[in-house]
Amino acid sequence: MKKVAVLMGSESDLNCLQEGLKLLSDFKVAFHLEVVSAHRTPERLFEFSKTASAQGCQLILAAAGGSAHLPGMVAALTELPVIGIPVESKKLKGLDSLLSIVQMPKGVPVATVAIENSFNAALLAVQILALQDKKLHRKLRSFRKRQTASVKKMNQAVRAFSRAKKK
Amino acid sequence: MKKVAVLMGSESDLNCLQEGLKLLSDFKVAFHLEVVSAHRTPERLFEFSKTASAQGCQLILAAAGGSAHLPGMVAALTELPVIGIPVESKKLKGLDSLLSIVQMPKGVPVATVAIENSFNAALLAVQILALQDKKLHRKLRSFRKRQTASVKKMNQAVRAFSRAKKK
Amino acid sequence: MKKVAVLMGSESDLNCLQEGLKLLSDFKVAFHLEVVSAHRTPERLFEFSKTASAQGCQLILAAAGGSAHLPGMVAALTELPVIGIPVESKKLKGLDSLLSIVQMPKGVPVATVAIENSFNAALLAVQILALQDKKLHRKLRSFRKRQTASVKKMNQAVRAFSRAKKK
Amino acid sequence: MKKVAVLMGSESDLNCLQEGLKLLSDFKVAFHLEVVSAHRTPERLFEFSKTASAQGCQLILAAAGGSAHLPGMVAALTELPVIGIPVESKKLKGLDSLLSIVQMPKGVPVATVAIENSFNAALLAVQILALQDKKLHRKLRSFRKRQTASVKKMNQAVRAFSRAKKK
Amino acid sequence: MKKVAVLMGSESDLNCLQEGLKLLSDFKVAFHLEVVSAHRTPERLFEFSKTASAQGCQLILAAAGGSAHLPGMVAALTELPVIGIPVESKKLKGLDSLLSIVQMPKGVPVATVAIENSFNAALLAVQILALQDKKLHRKLRSFRKRQTASVKKMNQAVRAFSRAKKK
Amino acid sequence: MKKVAVLMGSESDLNCLQEGLKLLSDFKVAFHLEVVSAHRTPERLFEFSKTASAQGCQLILAAAGGSAHLPGMVAALTELPVIGIPVESKKLKGLDSLLSIVQMPKGVPVATVAIENSFNAALLAVQILALQDKKLHRKLRSFRKRQTASVKKMNQAVRAFSRAKKK
Amino acid sequence: MKKVAVLMGSESDLNCLQEGLKLLSDFKVAFHLEVVSAHRTPERLFEFSKTASAQGCQLILAAAGGSAHLPGMVAALTELPVIGIPVESKKLKGLDSLLSIVQMPKGVPVATVAIENSFNAALLAVQILALQDKKLHRKLRSFRKRQTASVKKMNQAVRAFSRAKKK
Amino acid sequence: MKKVAVLMGSESDLNCLQEGLKLLSDFKVAFHLEVVSAHRTPERLFEFSKTASAQGCQLILAAAGGSAHLPGMVAALTELPVIGIPVESKKLKGLDSLLSIVQMPKGVPVATVAIENSFNAALLAVQILALQDKKLHRKLRSFRKRQTASVKKMNQAVRAFSRAKKK
Repeated sequence: MKKVAVLMGSESDLNCLQEGLKLLSDFKVAFHLEVVSAHRTPERLFEFSKTASAQGCQLILAAAGGSAHLPGMVAALTELPVIGIPVESKKLKGLDSLLSIVQMPKGVPVATVAIENSFNAALLAVQILALQDKKLHRKLRSFRKRQTASVKKMNQAVRAFSRAKKK
Repeated sequence: MKKVAVLMGSESDLNCLQEGLKLLSDFKVAFHLEVVSAHRTPERLFEFSKTASAQGCQLILAAAGGSAHLPGMVAALTELPVIGIPVESKKLKGLDSLLSIVQMPKGVPVATVAIENSFNAALLAVQILALQDKKLHRKLRSFRKRQTASVKKMNQAVRAFSRAKKK
Repeated sequence: MKKVAVLMGSESDLNCLQEGLKLLSDFKVAFHLEVVSAHRTPERLFEFSKTASAQGCQLILAAAGGSAHLPGMVAALTELPVIGIPVESKKLKGLDSLLSIVQMPKGVPVATVAIENSFNAALLAVQILALQDKKLHRKLRSFRKRQTASVKKMNQAVRAFSRAKKK
Repeated sequence: MKKVAVLMGSESDLNCLQEGLKLLSDFKVAFHLEVVSAHRTPERLFEFSKTASAQGCQLILAAAGGSAHLPGMVAALTELPVIGIPVESKKLKGLDSLLSIVQMPKGVPVATVAIENSFNAALLAVQILALQDKKLHRKLRSFRKRQTASVKKMNQAVRAFSRAKKK
Repeated sequence: MKKVAVLMGSESDLNCLQEGLKLLSDFKVAFHLEVVSAHRTPERLFEFSKTASAQGCQLILAAAGGSAHLPGMVAALTELPVIGIPVESKKLKGLDSLLSIVQMPKGVPVATVAIENSFNAALLAVQILALQDKKLHRKLRSFRKRQTASVKKMNQAVRAFSRAKKK
Repeated sequence: MKKVAVLMGSESDLNCLQEGLKLLSDFKVAFHLEVVSAHRTPERLFEFSKTASAQGCQLILAAAGGSAHLPGMVAALTELPVIGIPVESKKLKGLDSLLSIVQMPKGVPVATVAIENSFNAALLAVQILALQDKKLHRKLRSFRKRQTASVKKMNQAVRAFSRAKKK
Repeated sequence: MKKVAVLMGSESDLNCLQEGLKLLSDFKVAFHLEVVSAHRTPERLFEFSKTASAQGCQLILAAAGGSAHLPGMVAALTELPVIGIPVESKKLKGLDSLLSIVQMPKGVPVATVAIENSFNAALLAVQILALQDKKLHRKLRSFRKRQTASVKKMNQAVRAFSRAKKK
Repeated sequence: MKKVAVLMGSESDLNCLQEGLKLLSDFKVAFHLEVVSAHRTPERLFEFSKTASAQGCQLILAAAGGSAHLPGMVAALTELPVIGIPVESKKLKGLDSLLSIVQMPKGVPVATVAIENSFNAALLAVQILALQDKKLHRKLRSFRKRQTASVKKMNQAVRAFSRAKKK
């Protein structure tokens, strides 16, 4: 298996994962992508989680919405770090998803990121992998520099806006 | 196994279950009581849930707090009806527990009762069992009558309070 | 009357009930469907609830939004199990409906499902009826297997998506 | 019956009603006080609400907590104005009680006051009755003046506090 | 002045008031309609509130959103009953408006109705006025009957829907 | 009048104001302290707010809880900057107070600080006054330095704790 | 630098700032406008905040959404008053932004205005600057008068609406 | 510096960190412990965060309450993974702390754990370090086994409770 596995509770969560998957690709971090439903495929959840480490996986990202049990149950079945991504629920805007993922009991943590922020989940994965991978760390550093630089471009746009207003 | 199983995520949930267990005893509904932690004993969760029906269990009550995955995961692993009891969490007063238990996705329902209301969970179990058990149904009917009558006693106390005030 | 009654507080709740009604039909569980408003037709609420059991009804599903008193008031007037479906309210997204339905006092439970999830309410009804109906239980088991299998199809789609991305 | 009826869902709500009852007594508004539980005594709820107007009652105050169906159900069964008092619930601090009482559907209003504020419910009753009762209106006006004056006393205490600090 | 005054914090609240104004018209209750902003026209707020009673006004409806001080400030300046209508705010969906209107301190009540439910505010006004107006009371009773009857029509639609499904 | 006025909606808010009043004293900013209730003394609210500026007042701090209309109404009646302090309400923990104070409509701002944080309200007042008062600005700078230094002391305590643990 | 600086966490916050910038222009208050991201450009955040006062800046407005650290971090690095504008977040409607900005600890206040209300942030800035600028104060007074007058126009529209309805 | 740094926003957060520090000690993971206040010592925050990686630090745990900017600002200033621990705030029970820490914008993630759950933050740190440390991984595995076994002991207590009840 790849070093990073990306799980989602339903095919419909794929949309929210796009930005994170792109970031992993940009960093050339290969990943295994799979729908594993805690509620509809609990056997697969068990099998996957129990064997992930032995198959070379180092990190698991899991996205889920509503009662959102997937990240926590994966975390209960592996010693690997699990990063949880709360998917927006239709009615409660992801507050239910967030609380269900982050409020884990003592002994089984899930590293939770912002609602629908798969980009940050992927970046957190890169930061963790970079602890043992100097090349990845260099890429990370350069990514952060580009990110800082992107604000300069914003300021060019903002200054243009200001000038236009004043005329 | 008994017809009703009562699971809790942690020994500390026992306190919240007392009223429900007493009601089951009052109705002479024998029950199996066990700590099954979705996060610390996921194997036992699987084993219990997959075999409960074959062993004669008809209904499962499950109490959990915080991220509260127990009721939903049991429900994912059995076709038996599962009644979920949200246990009050220290910080968020059980709102997290409630949302995590009730907001289950299509295909795996949990019959959720009020926060910490194990009494009602047990009573709901009795109502369901009474559908096939005339003796239990008679007891249920008589319980409801006593419950209605209990309000009369309250009114005696209230009238005494009123009279005392007026003097 | 049919074994299952499905009540709604207003004609406008019919939309939210569609998935649940379809599931009941798929399981060939006949149902009685009626608008009973706790606030606009309290007499009918009383009459219906008090006679439902004698007429052969075993389970009542009730959908309501906002202050959402219907499920709890039906439950107060019958010993039958009542399953409550919180309908999304326009302003508070169904959080008011959920709290009003689930936070019932000791002595009168409502088995509450997720906001607008009539599918799960109907499935819970099937699970309860299947306790006394082997044929229904077999259908339930086969439904759950199909549900598990549906995730496989999702994974085919996801793999196709992955391959497309890599090209 | 008296012009004002004060209902509560449970004997335990009596505590929260004390200030309101005292205010009614201070204004010499006689009242009928009764525990009427929407869930445990629905027949009494019906009987009371359907006959209140004919018996001379003009206003109904109803206090309830949690799912708090009492005020709304009384309002559904009478044309009299109903004032609802949300009682604090143990877990959700009365937010559930407030939403359940205030979010009534079109056609059946409940005049809702602040959580546990029976004083204001009683005062609102006095304001409504004073529309047809000049004597009561004079008392109301004088009550408001005393209330304004009470702030002067507060300011004496505050000035004493200021002086003490400065020494 | 008319017996009922309907105030709004801003012209934009007029939309939310439409249903209530129509109900008042249907009941032939004449009303005075005015924009009075607690924050932009505090002098007018004072002048209006202090003179309303002397000019023959008996009831004041006030709609406001966000910090929504209008109903409470009117209530502070008159002994007349004030009915508050929380207008939906863009960001917080009217929860801020609701809490600001309903959570009044001891001594100055506002009779609060559901978010944006001007219909119920107007109906509550009619219920209060009907205490002294037999003709209005008869209309109210007939309105309630029509309301109950409207559910019958809903059930005809629902039955038609059921039959169509079965074909 | 003093340059700064500190208003509170009720004598009971004095406790929450203590830290802020002490900070003003420490900075030798004299202040006028008064209970002005928006709901019980609206005339005084008007009189105070309309004359504050003419009497030499430059800034107004106002603390209130629950519906908390005081800061917003003062702001409606003066052009002076108004700083609002949400006081914790018994039931909703000050969330109602916060929303009511901060969610002011366009045209009448209230500078809102954290719930019960009168210290920060006073410090904000000092920061504003220091814009025109060099002596005050120097004191402010030295206050900030001491504040930074206080964290050093915390670290001495923390290191002592660490060492004690390791033994 | 100008007397007022307006910062935003991202170019996308510019939209929410439009009304505030227009108000500053209307009052002829020149401003410095810049994207400064607490998270992407922390060095610029430091540099800007540490030098703002020395460069003649008197007031800083800062808009940010989600975790919204910008206003609080600027406030930590300058003694100038900082006005915080919570920008609506996509999922939680700005409640997260509001709490993150307003709930500052003792010692570092942020003057917080309503969610997305840059108009009020700008107006608060004008109110503070007007304390030392008589010309600005006259403009402010005249702005408030026009604001009050604008409600009269609303009432003309409302009366036209009323008359149209009655025909 | 040690491989793990544990920061807190204030000395008062030390209490909430106890369980996490004990877990790190139990796993023999040395740690650097320091109070770094984002608001009171922003320079130290910068210095620490910018140099942590060069000094051999691999992971940073940061606890903060209320507006809780510490974890996010550290994350903005280092490429190391940052684990955030929301500390309970007095008024809003840590909901503000949680949202402020978890809702980070794209580009700067904070791995958030449950409110006050420093135990899980430390365990997550151990899980991440164990990816490169086989000895630590063995300890982790054995910790998880003991954790699973601890539930057995709970069940002995529960069975004893059951037996005692039945007598």
